[in-house]
This record gives sequence, structure tokens and C-alpha cells, in this order.
Amino acid sequence: MSFFTMRLGERGVELIDQRLLPNQEKIRLLRSAEEVAQAIEQMVVRGAPAIGVTAAMGMAVELRRAQEQGISGAALKECVAAARERLERTRPTAVNLAWALDRMERALAPALERGADAGELVELAGSLAQRMHDEDIEVCRAIGDAGSPLVPEGGRVLTHCNAGGLATAGYGTALGVVRSAARDGRLQGVLACETRPFLQGARLTAWELAKDGIPVKLITDSMAGALMRQESIDLIIVGADRIAANGDVANKIGTYGLAVLARAHDLPFYVAAPLSTIDLATKDGSAIPIEQRDSREVTAIAERRIAPEGVEALHPAFDVTPAELVTGIVTEKGLARAPYSASLAALKAS
Amino acid sequence: MSFFTMRLGERGVELIDQRLLPNQEKIRLLRSAEEVAQAIEQMVVRGAPAIGVTAAMGMAVELRRAQEQGISGAALKECVAAARERLERTRPTAVNLAWALDRMERALAPALERGADAGELVELAGSLAQRMHDEDIEVCRAIGDAGSPLVPEGGRVLTHCNAGGLATAGYGTALGVVRSAARDGRLQGVLACETRPFLQGARLTAWELAKDGIPVKLITDSMAGALMRQESIDLIIVGADRIAANGDVANKIGTYGLAVLARAHDLPFYVAAPLSTIDLATKDGSAIPIEQRDSREVTAIAERRIAPEGVEALHPAFDVTPAELVTGIVTEKGLARAPYSASLAALKAS
Repeated sequence: MSFFTMRLGERGVELIDQRLLPNQEKIRLLRSAEEVAQAIEQMVVRGAPAIGVTAAMGMAVELRRAQEQGISGAALKECVAAARERLERTRPTAVNLAWALDRMERALAPALERGADAGELVELAGSLAQRMHDEDIEVCRAIGDAGSPLVPEGGRVLTHCNAGGLATAGYGTALGVVRSAARDGRLQGVLACETRPFLQGARLTAWELAKDGIPVKLITDSMAGALMRQESIDLIIVGADRIAANGDVANKIGTYGLAVLARAHDLPFYVAAPLSTIDLATKDGSAIPIEQRDSREVTAIAERRIAPEGVEALHPAFDVTPAELVTGIVTEKGLARAPYSASLAALKAS
Repeated sequence: MSFFTMRLGERGVELIDQRLLPNQEKIRLLRSAEEVAQAIEQMVVRGAPAIGVTAAMGMAVELRRAQEQGISGAALKECVAAARERLERTRPTAVNLAWALDRMERALAPALERGADAGELVELAGSLAQRMHDEDIEVCRAIGDAGSPLVPEGGRVLTHCNAGGLATAGYGTALGVVRSAARDGRLQGVLACETRPFLQGARLTAWELAKDGIPVKLITDSMAGALMRQESIDLIIVGADRIAANGDVANKIGTYGLAVLARAHDLPFYVAAPLSTIDLATKDGSAIPIEQRDSREVTAIAERRIAPEGVEALHPAFDVTPAELVTGIVTEKGLARAPYSASLAALKAS
């Protein structure tokens, strides 16, 4: 992977600003939980694993700030609780956010209980955030390697949104499978759905695959059906924002439509995600909160209105694909198949 | 319908420039077949019935030009043949273009044969183009009235692209049905797919429905599946660029995907089109030429690149929906149902 995504640096969290890609490669520096929270809300960084790791880094920089300000004792506890709360309410659908913040909270709790000073908490939070970052890359590589054999010789993969290096700490989930399949010599190329309204496919997936020299062509979301009918696609792989205990998958709006089309054309439809995306506490897709974003993200592109003044758009940012349309879920511990309530629980327990 | 679409005026063909909508309402004046041909190629005007009528008007203005230049005899014949050829090769998929030009050619042939002067031909072509314009509006009204009963009480209609007043001389085909259903008090509202890459839904359908006070909300093309699953849609109505003898329908890219989704959700999927769009000479959808447009129409929006330099896009402008996914075809002579080879032939012969 030949590009920078994120880093917990000396001065703060460094993120490539994904809103400006592919036209500008700008690194943003964030020095507080509030700044990190706004970056997540405004989609400077997006992608379920990436926002989990970023939120953990946000906790670490907030503790540094507390240390600089000489905060201690009960005020330190409050600072941690407030930062967690602020970071968690940025975006509701991806479960990795709560997962990462829970993990951070559990790691800090004993030290907070015994009244550790800010310096010790900074150490703890910083090293955990770094570990979560590094683990995320390892997990993605394991997902990629587990998924690579699913790509047939000369395989033509359709993907939606960006489940790549930019959506994770690096390597990617769905694009991790693509990278491993390319390395293994089995990939012919990728068709990237542009993914309206935020254009993650056009702006991010096309950018990162082109950077890595992996053949990619762009299509509008509406072309997928016709291309499946023309037998131009061998399999579909997407990422996930949350997978319920029964295997229902919340992912970028449009994923469900692709899954229906895949079924109608007898094509395999795979989901690639780390175990941290699987939420056994959510029984099925109906319990997954679907973020409704601003109408203006649909009615304007790059600040230029594409719809008449006064006309509103719907903007559910995600949809739910029922488990029965999912051929398999690729995790870092291997492939889960239906019935998912059994296979996902077993993988999570392993 | 409370907006201007097109007119054969004293000075030439007047068209609203659909590329600039909804931000600017600019009328363009075209004074030769070449100018009209370029306007069709560049999508100043689009929509199968609209480009048919525009092409007929293009023949009329070309003859005026010939008259002004004092062209007569054999040169006049050549001028007519050249204008027809130029106008016909602008866009390959919509059959209405050839249909309109054939009709014009047949009307001019006897006069050309007996060596009529340019003035007489100008008369003939001008009055025929005007008649085709007026007939197109009447036909659309008949389509609308035939289709209105298909919309249930409180009906929520999904449509794709723009099969409206702007795609015809006026009133529209799919939006003709919407207009008649609204007049009849049965329409709750319209969901307009934005229709990438050219955004006819966002820019044109939303604009013309809002102008007429018909409730419309915009969605990205990728939202249709999730909205069908949530039971937010009662029926789908689209236009057509060409309908083959067996009922296969070529229409804007993305139509096929919507038809598959409609079937998966047991929703009716209707096509509204004039009989001039039905091409009995084309056996089935595989024989319909699908226009491939420039990759840059996908990779840039309003001159701003949305994909990295060097990444190409596919751009089939249309797709084919097989007849078995079409619930019914609404024409000015009523509704055709399967088997379409019989019902379409009967309507064409009636």
C-alpha cells in the first residue's frame, strides 16, 4: 500500500483528509477529542474500522491535552467520560466506534480507579491506540488472505463504496481481499461503483487502487445490473459497518440493491469485515440504527447545486442486506457461511 | 405544464438548454441541421420523443437555410439527404429519431420528385414539424390518461431519468402518467432517482415536477432498493428509448436494475412510451444499439474531476430490460401486457 492514511503522531492525530481526495492529498492534524469527533462527523475520515481506530487515537490526544492543562483526579475521570461520549455520538451505524471506545475505557478503568495521574493515562491510551492501529492492519491482511481464494482465476470483482486502506488503518477489508488476490495473480480487475452521494468509490477506491497499480474502472452505481447481465462481473465484495448476530449486514447505501442484483444473476456476494464489526448484541438488521444525513449532501456536488432550490432529498447513509443474500462473510479468522447465527458466534468465541 | 420546452420559431428552433437546468433557464436558437445535430449530441435536448420532434424541426430550418441560399433542383435533394443523414447519426439508441426523419422524408419525397422549389418544401417541412410537435403533446396526454388508473389511491411513484415534458414536446410519458394521476387526485408523490451520470432526475425531473407543484423527493440511484424493501414505493414508471417487438425495453442506464429490484419486491414496473418508440423491426433487446458515451461524463461533474487522473469509467448510456420484467407498457392507445409480441403488434396496427 503506497499511501498514508492515519497516524498517532507527536503533535496529534494525523489523517489524510478524505473529503479532498483525489484532487488534493492534505494531512490534517487533530489535537483534541472534539477535533477528532468533528473530523469523523464531517467524514474527513470514514469507514468503520478507520473511525474505530481514529476514535481510540482521539482518546489518547484528549488525555495529552488534559495532561498539558494539569487536570487530575475526578476531573480526569470526567474528561475521559466526556471524550468517550463525544466521540461515540459522532456516527451511529458503525459498531467499531463503540467497540474501540469500550476497549479503551476498559484499559483505562483500573488506572482511573486508583487515581493514576494524567501522564500514566497518556501512556496507556497512546500505546493502546497504537496497538489497535497495528492490529487493524494485521487483521486486514488476514482478511485479505482468507478472502483471496474466493476470487477465481482472472476474477473481475465489483465493489461498492471504499472498504480499503482508507477505510481502515491500512490494507482494507474488501480491498484487502482485492490486494491479496492481485498479489496471488488471480485478479483481472476491479469495477468500482462510484457510490453516490459521497463518491467514495470514484474518489477513494479508484484513487487507492490506481496508487497500488491494481486495474480499476469506474462505473455509476446504476450500471451494476446491466454489467452483471452482460456477465462482466464474477463476484461482489463489500465491507460492512455493522453485522448483526444473524448475519444481516449494514453497509453503505446501495449495498442491498447490489446484493439483490447478485442473487438475480447467480453471482456470489461476499462481505469482508473484522470480527470487531460483528455485533452479537444486535439480534438482526432491524435493530441497527441507520444514520440519516443531510439532504444537501445529495442535492449539491462540490458546493454546486444539482437539484432545484426547495427540492429535498432523502439521505439514509446505509442500508441493511439480509443474511440470506450474503454468500459468505470473510473475517480475519476465516470465512463464515450460513447459518450465520452459529458461524459468527463461533468465530467471535474463537 | 408551466415551463417552455421547444418551439419552431420564426428565426429557428428554440430549445431550453437542458444542460444548464436547474440553475439557469436559457433558450438556445438553432438555425441549421448541423446546429440541431450538435444540440442533440451534446444533450442540450434529450429524451426519445423530444429528439424526434427536434430532428424534424432541424429538417425544417435546414430547408429555410437552403431557401435563403437559393438552392434548388438536385442540390436541394442532396441538401435534404445530407441533413437527414447528419441528424440521424447523432444518437443511435432512441428509435424516435429515425421514425421522425422517415416521416419527414416521406412527406417531402413527392415534392422533391417533381422538382418543387425550396419555398414549397419549407412550407411542407415546417407544417409537418409543427404537427409532429402538437401530436406529441396530444399523444403524451393520452399516455398520461391511460396510465393514471395504474396509480393506486395515495400512490407513491418511483421514476428514473426524465421522461417528462422536457423529454417530449410537452407533458411527458412516465411523467405524463404522474401528471394525470396528480390531476385525478391519486398521487401522493414522486421519488426521482437522480440518474447518474447526467443527473436528469435531479436536474430535470425534480425541476419540472416542482414547477408544476407535484410533490417530489430526490434519491440517489442506489437508494431505490432500500426504499422498496421499506415499502416506501408503490410502483415504478419509466420512459423508453426503444421497445423491441418482443417487449424488451431500452432505456436510461439503471432502468434494468430497477426492474430487477421491482420484481424482487413484487412491485409493478411500467414503461410509458408513444407507439413511435415501439420498433417492430427490432426483434428483441439484443438488436438494440446501445450508445457508449465519453468516460469523462462519469469521471467529472460540472467540470470538476471526481475520479483520479488516469482512471477511466465505463459509460453505456442505456440498458435493456427484458420483457418478462415489464408489468405493462402504457401507450397513447392503451396498456399493452404480455405477451408483448402480440399486444404491441396489435396496438401498432390499430
